[in-house]
Amino acid sequence: MMKIGVWLIGARGSIATTVVAGTAAVKCGLSAAVGCVTELPSFADCALPGIGDLVFGGHDIATTPLTKRAERLAEGGVLPARILDAVLDDLAAADAEIRPGVAAAGHDPATLVADIAGFRERRGLDLVVVVNAASTEPPAVPCPEHASLAALENAMARGRSVLPPSSLYAYAAFRAGCPYVDFTPSTGVRLPALDQLARAERLPYAGSDAKTGETLVKSALTPMFAQRALRVRSWSGINLLGGGDGATLADPATAASKLASKSRVLAAALGGDVEQVLHIDHVADMGEWKTAWDHITFDGFLGVRMALQFTWQGCDSALAAPLVIDLARLMSHAYARGHCGPVAPLAFFFKDPVGEAACGLAEQFAALTQWAAQS
Amino acid sequence: MMKIGVWLIGARGSIATTVVAGTAAVKCGLSAAVGCVTELPSFADCALPGIGDLVFGGHDIATTPLTKRAERLAEGGVLPARILDAVLDDLAAADAEIRPGVAAAGHDPATLVADIAGFRERRGLDLVVVVNAASTEPPAVPCPEHASLAALENAMARGRSVLPPSSLYAYAAFRAGCPYVDFTPSTGVRLPALDQLARAERLPYAGSDAKTGETLVKSALTPMFAQRALRVRSWSGINLLGGGDGATLADPATAASKLASKSRVLAAALGGDVEQVLHIDHVADMGEWKTAWDHITFDGFLGVRMALQFTWQGCDSALAAPLVIDLARLMSHAYARGHCGPVAPLAFFFKDPVGEAACGLAEQFAALTQWAAQS
Amino acid sequence: MMKIGVWLIGARGSIATTVVAGTAAVKCGLSAAVGCVTELPSFADCALPGIGDLVFGGHDIATTPLTKRAERLAEGGVLPARILDAVLDDLAAADAEIRPGVAAAGHDPATLVADIAGFRERRGLDLVVVVNAASTEPPAVPCPEHASLAALENAMARGRSVLPPSSLYAYAAFRAGCPYVDFTPSTGVRLPALDQLARAERLPYAGSDAKTGETLVKSALTPMFAQRALRVRSWSGINLLGGGDGATLADPATAASKLASKSRVLAAALGGDVEQVLHIDHVADMGEWKTAWDHITFDGFLGVRMALQFTWQGCDSALAAPLVIDLARLMSHAYARGHCGPVAPLAFFFKDPVGEAACGLAEQFAALTQWAAQS
Amino acid sequence: MMKIGVWLIGARGSIATTVVAGTAAVKCGLSAAVGCVTELPSFADCALPGIGDLVFGGHDIATTPLTKRAERLAEGGVLPARILDAVLDDLAAADAEIRPGVAAAGHDPATLVADIAGFRERRGLDLVVVVNAASTEPPAVPCPEHASLAALENAMARGRSVLPPSSLYAYAAFRAGCPYVDFTPSTGVRLPALDQLARAERLPYAGSDAKTGETLVKSALTPMFAQRALRVRSWSGINLLGGGDGATLADPATAASKLASKSRVLAAALGGDVEQVLHIDHVADMGEWKTAWDHITFDGFLGVRMALQFTWQGCDSALAAPLVIDLARLMSHAYARGHCGPVAPLAFFFKDPVGEAACGLAEQFAALTQWAAQS
Repeated sequence: MMKIGVWLIGARGSIATTVVAGTAAVKCGLSAAVGCVTELPSFADCALPGIGDLVFGGHDIATTPLTKRAERLAEGGVLPARILDAVLDDLAAADAEIRPGVAAAGHDPATLVADIAGFRERRGLDLVVVVNAASTEPPAVPCPEHASLAALENAMARGRSVLPPSSLYAYAAFRAGCPYVDFTPSTGVRLPALDQLARAERLPYAGSDAKTGETLVKSALTPMFAQRALRVRSWSGINLLGGGDGATLADPATAASKLASKSRVLAAALGGDVEQVLHIDHVADMGEWKTAWDHITFDGFLGVRMALQFTWQGCDSALAAPLVIDLARLMSHAYARGHCGPVAPLAFFFKDPVGEAACGLAEQFAALTQWAAQS
Repeated sequence: MMKIGVWLIGARGSIATTVVAGTAAVKCGLSAAVGCVTELPSFADCALPGIGDLVFGGHDIATTPLTKRAERLAEGGVLPARILDAVLDDLAAADAEIRPGVAAAGHDPATLVADIAGFRERRGLDLVVVVNAASTEPPAVPCPEHASLAALENAMARGRSVLPPSSLYAYAAFRAGCPYVDFTPSTGVRLPALDQLARAERLPYAGSDAKTGETLVKSALTPMFAQRALRVRSWSGINLLGGGDGATLADPATAASKLASKSRVLAAALGGDVEQVLHIDHVADMGEWKTAWDHITFDGFLGVRMALQFTWQGCDSALAAPLVIDLARLMSHAYARGHCGPVAPLAFFFKDPVGEAACGLAEQFAALTQWAAQS
Repeated sequence: MMKIGVWLIGARGSIATTVVAGTAAVKCGLSAAVGCVTELPSFADCALPGIGDLVFGGHDIATTPLTKRAERLAEGGVLPARILDAVLDDLAAADAEIRPGVAAAGHDPATLVADIAGFRERRGLDLVVVVNAASTEPPAVPCPEHASLAALENAMARGRSVLPPSSLYAYAAFRAGCPYVDFTPSTGVRLPALDQLARAERLPYAGSDAKTGETLVKSALTPMFAQRALRVRSWSGINLLGGGDGATLADPATAASKLASKSRVLAAALGGDVEQVLHIDHVADMGEWKTAWDHITFDGFLGVRMALQFTWQGCDSALAAPLVIDLARLMSHAYARGHCGPVAPLAFFFKDPVGEAACGLAEQFAALTQWAAQS
Repeated sequence: MMKIGVWLIGARGSIATTVVAGTAAVKCGLSAAVGCVTELPSFADCALPGIGDLVFGGHDIATTPLTKRAERLAEGGVLPARILDAVLDDLAAADAEIRPGVAAAGHDPATLVADIAGFRERRGLDLVVVVNAASTEPPAVPCPEHASLAALENAMARGRSVLPPSSLYAYAAFRAGCPYVDFTPSTGVRLPALDQLARAERLPYAGSDAKTGETLVKSALTPMFAQRALRVRSWSGINLLGGGDGATLADPATAASKLASKSRVLAAALGGDVEQVLHIDHVADMGEWKTAWDHITFDGFLGVRMALQFTWQGCDSALAAPLVIDLARLMSHAYARGHCGPVAPLAFFFKDPVGEAACGLAEQFAALTQWAAQS
C-alpha cells in the first residue's frame, strides 16, 4: 500500500482545511466521498492510493490552527458540525506539519525544499504531491530569466527575486522530487524554466485553476451549443464571491489572472466572435459561498434570438476539496507510471489546462478515464 | 444528386411551416442554416442529400394555407419578415402537396399510403422520409393487437380501430416504403407490430420526441453532475408554452406522454433516487415561445447543499425545424446504407430514443458523427 | 406591564418552535428581532406589549418535545446552534403548556376552551391571543350550519361534526374570550357563524394565510405594474417546499386552499384578465427551505413584450415566526382598544385578508401604521 | 384646448423616435397608450393636455431621418411593423422640426434659444416643454462658475466653455421660457446657477434619470424589505445593454453618472450598510433590449440567510417613451399652475429625483397623484 503525502500551499486556507477534515471524515466513515471523481466506478481498476492513505502537511503564512479554522467553517455551513469532534486529531496532526510560507518573491527555496523533504522522511511517505491552493496572485511580471532553467538558477544564485511565490513553490517541489499541481490561476509552474526543471527531474505537473463552478457549467454547456450548430452571440457572467478568495479577487490586478483563465474556456469552445462580459466581485456577506449568474444569447434557425440563463450557488471549498484529493491520487498515478512534464489528460479538472486538451467537459472526462485506465 | 421528399405529418403546423420556409430561405441564400447539425464540419464527408434538394408535402387536418401560416409566424417573430416574399412560391408548392390528415383512430391506411406514394411519383423522388411533427397525442390505450404485425393487420382487416393516428401514419409510411421519424412523444412507431413491419420492409425508423429545449440542457448538464460525482437530490422543472403545442399539452392526458418522455432522461442519467417535479403549462400569451425554469439541488463534499437554476427562453419551431431537416437527411443516409429498424445513433436528437443509447449529449454526439462517417 | 399569552395551534410545528426559541433568544439579547415589523420605529409610540412579556402554550397532535424540535431546526439551519443552550428552559416551559390537539372534526370544544382558560389562569395572563399555525387543511365542505351561530350551536349540541379543526379552535378561542388569528389558509374563523360569535363576545380576529414569500413579493410588485400602466399578460409561479408544509400541500385537496388564497392577490391587484399558472410542489430534500420562481410577461408601449422573473429562496419558519410575534402584539393592541370583528388594517400580513383592504403592500403598510398609531 | 410642443434633445434617438411614432399610433387609434401613467384613472380629472395635442421637434447631432430610424426600430422589434405606414407623416413632420444639436461644451446658446422659440411660433404652441433624452454624458467637471447665474453668464459672455451640452440645453430652454426635464443622468439642470435661472424665469424643471427597469423594480422592492424589518445585507446587480445607450455607457467615465444615480435609490431606502455591486455592460448583440439581474441577500429572524434574485428583460425605448409623454403633460400642468423650480412630486419617474421625495415607489405614486389632483 502506497502512503502518499499531500503538501498543501495555503495549508490553513478554507480549501485545505476542508480537504484535511473531509478526508478524516471519509476515513472514519462519517461521510461519503461525494464530489471525489476518483471514487467513480470508472476508476475502480486503477489501483489509485486510498483516500485513507493520504497524509497532510504544507506551507502557509497564516497561523490560525486548523482546528480553529474548522470550527469557523462549521459555523459557515461548510463543514457539518457533527463531524468536528471526530476529525480533531487529524486536523492537529496536519497542523503539526505546517511550516511558514512565503509571502513575497525573493525567498531562498532551500528552506522550502527542506520542509517538504523533512515531511516525507518524518512520515515515511512513498511520494509527496505538492498542491498550490493558496490565494490567487496577480499576474507575474514577465522576465527574461523565466525562459530557461539555466538563466533562472543563475539569477537565483545572484540573489535576484524573479519568481512569484507560486513559482517558487513549484521550483521547490521539483527540487524536492515532488509532482506539482497548480490549483489556482497563479503563475506557478507555467514558466519555460520550470517546465525544463520538471522534465529534468522526470516529474509530472498539472494545472491550472480548478474549475469548480461557473466555468464547470460553461464547459458542460458550450459543447451543447456547438454540437447543435446554435450560434452563441454573447456570454455574460458575474461571480459574487464571499470569503478570502473574494477579497483577494476584488483586487483588479489579481482578478486579471482569474478572468483571463475563465474566458479561455469560452473562446476555445465557441470561437472568438462571442461577445463576453465577465465580472468577479467580492460580497463579504456571502461568506464561503458563491453565486454566479450567466446570461447567454444565441441564434437559432433563421436568426431567431434566444437566451439561456443559469445561476450557480455553491460552496467553493466543498467543491474544490474533493478535487484536491483526486489530483493527489492521480498525480501519484502519473508519477508511478513515469509520466513527466504536463499531464494533459487532467484537463477535466482545470479552467486553463496545461498541454493539449479538448475543451468540452465530456471529452475531457473520456480522456481522463482512458488515460487512468491504461497501465 | 438524390432528390429526397419530406412528408410531414402536421404539415401546416408551426414546425412544418418553419421547415418549408426556412429551407427555401437557406436555398436562396437569405439565411444560414443555423441550428442544422448536419451542416457542421463533422458531416462534411458524409455525402448527405443537399438541403436544397428536399421537397415537401404532408398530411394535416388543418386547412389554413402555408402562406397564411407563414405570415402569422412572421408576426410572432418566428420567421423574419424580410424572407417572406422570397419563400412564397416554395410555400405554395408544398401546400399543393398537402393531403387531408387523420383526426382519429380507425381510418383506412390505404388512402394515406396512396397519398405518400403519389407524392413520390409526381415529384420524381428517390426517397420520401415521413416525419411526424403533429400535435402530441394522449398515451395510447394498450391493446393485444399491438404485439404482432399479424394480429394488428388481422384487426385492421376486420375494421377495428386499434391504432392511434400517429401509429396509423407510421404504418402507412412503412407500407409506402418510407423511413419514419417520431418527432413527438406520440405512440407512433413504438409498437412491436410496427417494428416488425419496419424490419419486414427493410426500413429504418427513429424517434422519439425531439429534444429542443429544457431536455437538451438537461442532457448536457446531467453528465456534469455524474462525472463530478456530485449527488443530485432534486430536479424540478416548469415549462411555460404558448401556441398550439402548449394548448395541446394543457390537456393532462396528453401532457402525460410528454412528461413521461422528459423524465426518462433524468432517471437514465442520474439513477432513480432523484426527486422530480415536472410541469408543462399553457400560457397563451407566450405565442410561439417557451420559457423553462429548472431548479436542481445537489450535495457536494461532506453533504454541503448547493443549487443550480437555469432559465431557457426559446422558440420551439426555430429549434425544431433544423432538426427535421437533419433527420430527413440522416434517415436518407441510413436508408441508403441499408439500415433497418430503430436507428439508435440518432439518440442525440431525442428525449426518449429508440434502441440502446448513451444518455449524455456529448456521447450521443460522438455516436452520431461516428455512425454518419462510416460507409 | 401587560403579560400576554400566545396560544399556538400547531405548537410543536416548525413555526411555533421558532417563535418560542426566537423570542427567548431576543429576550436574552442573543439575537436582534429581525423580521419583527412591530419593532420598526413606526410602532415605537404604540405601547405594544414587550416581546419579552409573551408567554407561550398551545395545542398540538404531535408529541415530540420542543427541545427536540429545536435541535432538528438547528441541524436544518433554521435556528443558530449557538442559541440552543440559552433557550432550552423557555422551550421546556412552553412545552409544559402544550395540550393534545384536535385531529379531526367533531371534537367537543369544551376541553379546548378549558385548556386555554387554564393557561391564562395558571400563568396570570392579562390576555391570551390564539394563533393557528398548524398544517393547512383541505377546503371545508360548505354546510348550512355555518351560516349562523344559532344553527351552528344547535348542530353542535346535537353532536354533529360541522366544523373543521381550525374552526373548532376559533370557536374555542372566542368562547374562552381570546382574539384569534388565522395564520394559515384553513377555514378557521371565516364562517358567518364565527364572525357572529366574535362580535357577540366583543373579540377581534385576523387572517388569513400569512404572506411570507412569493406572495409578499407579488404584493410589492403588482402595484408597480399597475402604477406604471404596464399591462401584465401572464403571471406564472412555482413554489418548491420542503418539510411538513410541503408534504401537506402535496395533497391536491389541501393545496387548493393555498392556491386559492395565493391567486386572490393577483386578481385583486391587476384585474381578472391575467393568465395565471400556480404550482405548489413538495421537494422533501429542501427541508425547511422554500424556493419560488415567478415569471411575468407584460406589455409596454405599443405592445412591446417584456418579462420579469424572480427567484425567492427563503426559510418559511424564519419568515413566519416574527409575524406571529407581531400579530400577538397587535391583536392585544386591538383588544385593548375595543376592536371587535375582523381587523382589516392587519391586511399587510396576509394573502387573503379579512375585511376591506388595499392590495398593494405599501398601502397596506400605511394603513397598518396609521391604525396602530391611533389611540 | 392647449397645444403643447415637446422639444426633444436627442430627437433622432431611439427614445425620441418611439415617442413620435407611438404618439401618432395612439392618436390614430392603432395602439393603446400602454405605459402612459397619465392615462390612469387617477389622472382623469386633471385636465392634462391630450396625447394627440402634442407636437414634436428637437435638437440632434445625428442626421438619419426619423422615418429611417423608425424602420430600424421596427426591425429590432421596438415598433410594430403594422403601424409604420400610418405614422410616416407624423415622423416626417417632426423630422422637419429637428435642428442641429450641440456636440460639445462652448456653444453659443443663442442659436438653441432661437431654434426653440422658432418652433413655438411656427407651430402656434401654447407652451414648449424641453426634454433631454440624449445619450448620457460623463459627469461634469465641477467649476466655480456653476455656483451662481451671474458668474455663469459672466463666463459665457467672455466666451468660456463652462457648461456641458446637457446644461447648455437647460440654459437655452429656460431662456426660451420653457420647462425642462432631465430624462438622463447627465448634469443638465442640476447646477445652482441653472436653478437660479429657472426661478428667475418662473419655470419648473424635473429630473433626473428616468427609472425604466432595474431601478424601477428596486424602488418597488426596497420598501418591502424595510417594512418587513428584513435586513438587506448585499444587493448586487448587472445590467446588460445593447444599442446606443449601452455603447455610451461602456465608457467608464459616462457609466459613472449612471452608476451614481442608480445606487442612490438603494442607499436612501435601506441605509448605508448594504454591500453594493453594480455593473453596466454593453452587449451589442442585445440591440434595443436590456437584461438586468439583481441578487439580494438578506437576514430574517435569528439571522437566517435568504436571497432574492430577479431578471428584468425590457426594451428601454418602449419603457421610456410613454414616460416622456407623461412628463410633457405633467410639466405643462406644473407650468399652468405656476410651479417654479424643481417639481419634487415627479420623483415617481426618476432614479435621482430633484427636490425632497420619498424613496418608495408607492409613496412616490401617492405623492404624484395627490399633487396632480390639486388645483
